[in-house]
Amino acid sequence: MAAPLEMHEDRLLPSDPAQRAVARALYAQVRDLPILSPHGHSDPAWYGDNIAFPDPSRLLIIPDHYLLRMLYSQGVPLERLGVPRRDGGPVEEDPRAVWRLFAQHYHLFRGTPSRLWLDYVLYYLFGVRQRLGPDTAEAIYDQIAGCLARPEFRVRELFRRFHIEVLATTDSPLSDLEAHQRIAASGWPGRVLPTFRPDPLVDPEAPGFGQNLEHLARLTGQDTSRWPGYLRALAQRRQFFIAHGATATDHGHPSAKTCDLPPADCQRLLDQALRGEMSPAQAEAFRGQMLLEMAKMSLEDGLVMQLHPGSWRNHNRLLYQRFGPDMGADIPTPTNYVRDLKPLLDRLGNEPGLTLILFTLDESAYSRELAPLAGHYPILRLGPAWWFYDSPQGMLRHKRRMIETAGFYNTVGFNDDTRAFASIPARHDLSRRLDCAYLAELVCDHCLAEDEAAELAGELAYGLAKRAYRL
Amino acid sequence: MAAPLEMHEDRLLPSDPAQRAVARALYAQVRDLPILSPHGHSDPAWYGDNIAFPDPSRLLIIPDHYLLRMLYSQGVPLERLGVPRRDGGPVEEDPRAVWRLFAQHYHLFRGTPSRLWLDYVLYYLFGVRQRLGPDTAEAIYDQIAGCLARPEFRVRELFRRFHIEVLATTDSPLSDLEAHQRIAASGWPGRVLPTFRPDPLVDPEAPGFGQNLEHLARLTGQDTSRWPGYLRALAQRRQFFIAHGATATDHGHPSAKTCDLPPADCQRLLDQALRGEMSPAQAEAFRGQMLLEMAKMSLEDGLVMQLHPGSWRNHNRLLYQRFGPDMGADIPTPTNYVRDLKPLLDRLGNEPGLTLILFTLDESAYSRELAPLAGHYPILRLGPAWWFYDSPQGMLRHKRRMIETAGFYNTVGFNDDTRAFASIPARHDLSRRLDCAYLAELVCDHCLAEDEAAELAGELAYGLAKRAYRL
Amino acid sequence: MAAPLEMHEDRLLPSDPAQRAVARALYAQVRDLPILSPHGHSDPAWYGDNIAFPDPSRLLIIPDHYLLRMLYSQGVPLERLGVPRRDGGPVEEDPRAVWRLFAQHYHLFRGTPSRLWLDYVLYYLFGVRQRLGPDTAEAIYDQIAGCLARPEFRVRELFRRFHIEVLATTDSPLSDLEAHQRIAASGWPGRVLPTFRPDPLVDPEAPGFGQNLEHLARLTGQDTSRWPGYLRALAQRRQFFIAHGATATDHGHPSAKTCDLPPADCQRLLDQALRGEMSPAQAEAFRGQMLLEMAKMSLEDGLVMQLHPGSWRNHNRLLYQRFGPDMGADIPTPTNYVRDLKPLLDRLGNEPGLTLILFTLDESAYSRELAPLAGHYPILRLGPAWWFYDSPQGMLRHKRRMIETAGFYNTVGFNDDTRAFASIPARHDLSRRLDCAYLAELVCDHCLAEDEAAELAGELAYGLAKRAYRL
Repeated sequence: MAAPLEMHEDRLLPSDPAQRAVARALYAQVRDLPILSPHGHSDPAWYGDNIAFPDPSRLLIIPDHYLLRMLYSQGVPLERLGVPRRDGGPVEEDPRAVWRLFAQHYHLFRGTPSRLWLDYVLYYLFGVRQRLGPDTAEAIYDQIAGCLARPEFRVRELFRRFHIEVLATTDSPLSDLEAHQRIAASGWPGRVLPTFRPDPLVDPEAPGFGQNLEHLARLTGQDTSRWPGYLRALAQRRQFFIAHGATATDHGHPSAKTCDLPPADCQRLLDQALRGEMSPAQAEAFRGQMLLEMAKMSLEDGLVMQLHPGSWRNHNRLLYQRFGPDMGADIPTPTNYVRDLKPLLDRLGNEPGLTLILFTLDESAYSRELAPLAGHYPILRLGPAWWFYDSPQGMLRHKRRMIETAGFYNTVGFNDDTRAFASIPARHDLSRRLDCAYLAELVCDHCLAEDEAAELAGELAYGLAKRAYRL
Repeated sequence: MAAPLEMHEDRLLPSDPAQRAVARALYAQVRDLPILSPHGHSDPAWYGDNIAFPDPSRLLIIPDHYLLRMLYSQGVPLERLGVPRRDGGPVEEDPRAVWRLFAQHYHLFRGTPSRLWLDYVLYYLFGVRQRLGPDTAEAIYDQIAGCLARPEFRVRELFRRFHIEVLATTDSPLSDLEAHQRIAASGWPGRVLPTFRPDPLVDPEAPGFGQNLEHLARLTGQDTSRWPGYLRALAQRRQFFIAHGATATDHGHPSAKTCDLPPADCQRLLDQALRGEMSPAQAEAFRGQMLLEMAKMSLEDGLVMQLHPGSWRNHNRLLYQRFGPDMGADIPTPTNYVRDLKPLLDRLGNEPGLTLILFTLDESAYSRELAPLAGHYPILRLGPAWWFYDSPQGMLRHKRRMIETAGFYNTVGFNDDTRAFASIPARHDLSRRLDCAYLAELVCDHCLAEDEAAELAGELAYGLAKRAYRL
Repeated sequence: MAAPLEMHEDRLLPSDPAQRAVARALYAQVRDLPILSPHGHSDPAWYGDNIAFPDPSRLLIIPDHYLLRMLYSQGVPLERLGVPRRDGGPVEEDPRAVWRLFAQHYHLFRGTPSRLWLDYVLYYLFGVRQRLGPDTAEAIYDQIAGCLARPEFRVRELFRRFHIEVLATTDSPLSDLEAHQRIAASGWPGRVLPTFRPDPLVDPEAPGFGQNLEHLARLTGQDTSRWPGYLRALAQRRQFFIAHGATATDHGHPSAKTCDLPPADCQRLLDQALRGEMSPAQAEAFRGQMLLEMAKMSLEDGLVMQLHPGSWRNHNRLLYQRFGPDMGADIPTPTNYVRDLKPLLDRLGNEPGLTLILFTLDESAYSRELAPLAGHYPILRLGPAWWFYDSPQGMLRHKRRMIETAGFYNTVGFNDDTRAFASIPARHDLSRRLDCAYLAELVCDHCLAEDEAAELAGELAYGLAKRAYRL
């Protein structure tokens, strides 16, 4: 007989009875707050077209790099999981076969957040009551597939059921935001905002950088080969995004390096970038200068900046050649925010009205760099535990190493940062539970009164994100 | 109605009932032990003059860089907090207005040690029974101001009430220790010892280094432009400090680098330092050499060394220009003790009779560097969790990552490291509670017997500091 | 009256009653599983000769660098502990005097794993029921000495009583494995396997590198001064080890650096190595190339690779000169696996059939490097918490920072990594208790069902090591 799938109402709340009672009371107050999702990677076309998701595997497995990486690490070829090859080579086409294979390996996810998210989705979204495994794979597949065929599982209806108040996508700076325009024109009340992610235009090592700048020139009528025109063109694109609802930019640089170079040097770097004659150090300087330029523009136009540095993208050469990016082979690297942000902070660190939200994949920087910086500089705020650390233990470490130095009010609440739409409520629920667990600890240590904890629970679940992202 | 201010008698002790019972019993045994404060930054003139503190804001807010940084990070200008500008520009002069502004922002400190320390001071020192906030600001101001006007709130009387057995100040190596002499002459029995902090004389990048050495020459009659005379002069100053009660030196270098250079190189570096012609690397080498020289002198004269490296002082350029140092803009940097201390350890690491106490702002070094080093080299001891980590979670991490490798007996108990005199009992109380919490964990894990834990609680609160600092 | 020595049946299980109940049930299922010891440093001659251990001090103190370092850090000279000097100078010869000195300092080990291991050995192996200290030193010495004189305390009988299924030693690549041959010839059923540790042949900075390669040439008939002959000779030695039961290699490099150089460069490096004309960077490149060569051979011959980088060996110069290696003066250094392993991973990272087990002394790499790498690359597995981190808190950090990203199934269970034979059951018991504590946390957080936790407890104690090491 299959094992039951249970979602205990106290899951992830502290085991200690005194703490659990406090945590439970706090959680009851925030559980049903609307979801703010100010940083994510879902496709705006889904909402524009109000799509139905095709099948369980294409919804839950094939686009999820957390799942792919774990399965691959244990010897499951991506071809067998239905991931398309760049060379068009044969891959598994049958979503049911992919699902079956996944179910055989579901034990690999024990102890990981993927397991928690997926169980939540199975239980609450699809009504599954048996644990996924080889014995239940077929029945659960049928149950999900049956749901997906129904109109109430179309994406706009899910958006409403998930109680999402705002959701931000991440968009190319060259995008015409056609999907967002379609959403606006449709009369559907869901708020789906674009986010300006200029990497293809500010990273000279981005694929097709020169062509991207030509494209930018065509879109804006500016001479993007000249530094002033290039900056004006970027400012125009930002305005275009703002006109379509954007409140933030996002920057995915290899490091947090910033620069403050004289204009002549900037032009020289741009010339080299366009000629494709750049050393890695020069490319780094160019990106660093552009972070400063983006900050200057943010000071003008009010877009909140987000900096996500320190991922070594596509570390697995072979896998990248065969399948492309986002296959679970991005690996963290150390950061040095204290040194790298200095030029930007020297110029703009004390500006009222500028907000720069910092993320890291280097947990040793939490207490050594990020909390001391954010606990001092008025422009800085701390993003939530990111990526590999979007997990129960990861969140606790994030809080325990940051809050004592930076306080709660220099943080920005939770981001789900996901392209896995169905998992959004699961991720916010997990975060809210961990927030309440942490607050309950403080209450039971008699470091915080219960009324204060209740106020903070609401801030962490809703208020801080609302204000930081200007939603 | 204002919320009450409560100080629960079990605050910061473990929530688990079994652990709490053990922790409570341990804490009862150390709560009232005298305070040893072997490293701090209060002004010896306070004790020499037996001052009264002027008003609540000048006592509790304006000199506290922990408070300034958090308020500044949330957009409160330092001018409005009454912090004097270097250019004499206008700042808030009314201490009551500063207090009111602070009270409006008191929620920012939720979850931070500043909140715990300040609540303790309000409750126990001033008898406040309502939580500080906009609604209670005036009344609490009046209550504190009323106290400060009374003779029993003068500093010597507080020193006695706080049960301070010894307190060390930190002094310029050029100081005449006049305040300390005045204390000794006064017949007041409080023990206030100077600490020899030679940074202005051993760091060629210190402001006025050349003039400092001329001053040193005048004080000692030595030729401080020649390496042997320079060293003799420093040794004389150390003797002067010892004659006034000093038992320790303190070194605030940017890194832990030490050097062991031939004398000719030392003279050459000194020449360059005096001509102001030094590269950053040479300045680093000079400081590194001087750490070795100080250690050699300590071996002779018995002063205990303290090394506090890794703070990037005055990281915020604008703020430093406007307000000077100690405004909450010092940010940690990584350390590499294993490589940097090697020259000193090669020369002196096995010397009986030498003690070098290590601190760090880089928590990743706790288990990788500091505990393994201190768990082997006879001269090394581990200072307490420092600065940003002088907090409940910070102390737990410090213990959990160090004790298993270095043991309790290679640590030196607690330092309050503060210029906030009123907070000294609060800080020691917090430390004693966390010590007992950690010990109770070990007892309830059945890794330690209760009689052993009781002995260790006394060592951590008193014995280890007494012996390590030779008090 | 002497304090009793007690071993609580719930030691190291969580204090929280709900968690403790779960942990207890899990532990009951794994407590008596056979011990797999796939990585250790005991002497194969012990088993070949079925030795009796000479006395309590030579069994428990003198060979244990964990004990030596702590005692030395508190001023106990190694001479007084009976450690032989390289120059043959006088050291304490009386094991009873050594034992007495140790007992006087036993309090130093409070809070350390050494204390837990040793108490276990005293209690369970020798039946001691009083806490070791100055007052009980003599009686306990006599009790142990009495045991050691009896036949049931010979090593083979202990091996059986300890329920050891397999134990691996670590052997020179030039060894004739005579002791292992003697074990095999003796008919004794204990499985003691050699491990191929090629450091003396692949590290040009190893003492006597040139002579080692001449020795290798004699053993194999290959021209070890030519790159192809050198590699063939190594491959032959691996075959010799495989023929005597080896399933793994072990590599103790200063860093995790790997290289993938063209053959001509390899010959050039080998020439330089043999002439002794190598810069540190070239030596590092040579070792890095040899890691790749070893991995290529592993792909052929099936030996599992273990990489143990990041120890600065013999950091204390004086101590090394006087006593030689393994005196407790090895200190961790930072690692950068993400960059350093890239050449090897580019070449072999996706190979089914290759296994590379990673260890680190840099805990900041757990979540930033090791878990993300092992959670993606099929060849990588995570070794247990190593050396200084083979401790209750060390193991919890290891699990809490790794499992959420890499899962349980990319880990390899426990290694005792010890030359302290008597402590092997103590170490495995401690590990099993901590495994169950961690699993109980997950169960009580409702992140894992009890049947899953039970399965994982068995995997962590037995199954994962069995499969990863191909035992």
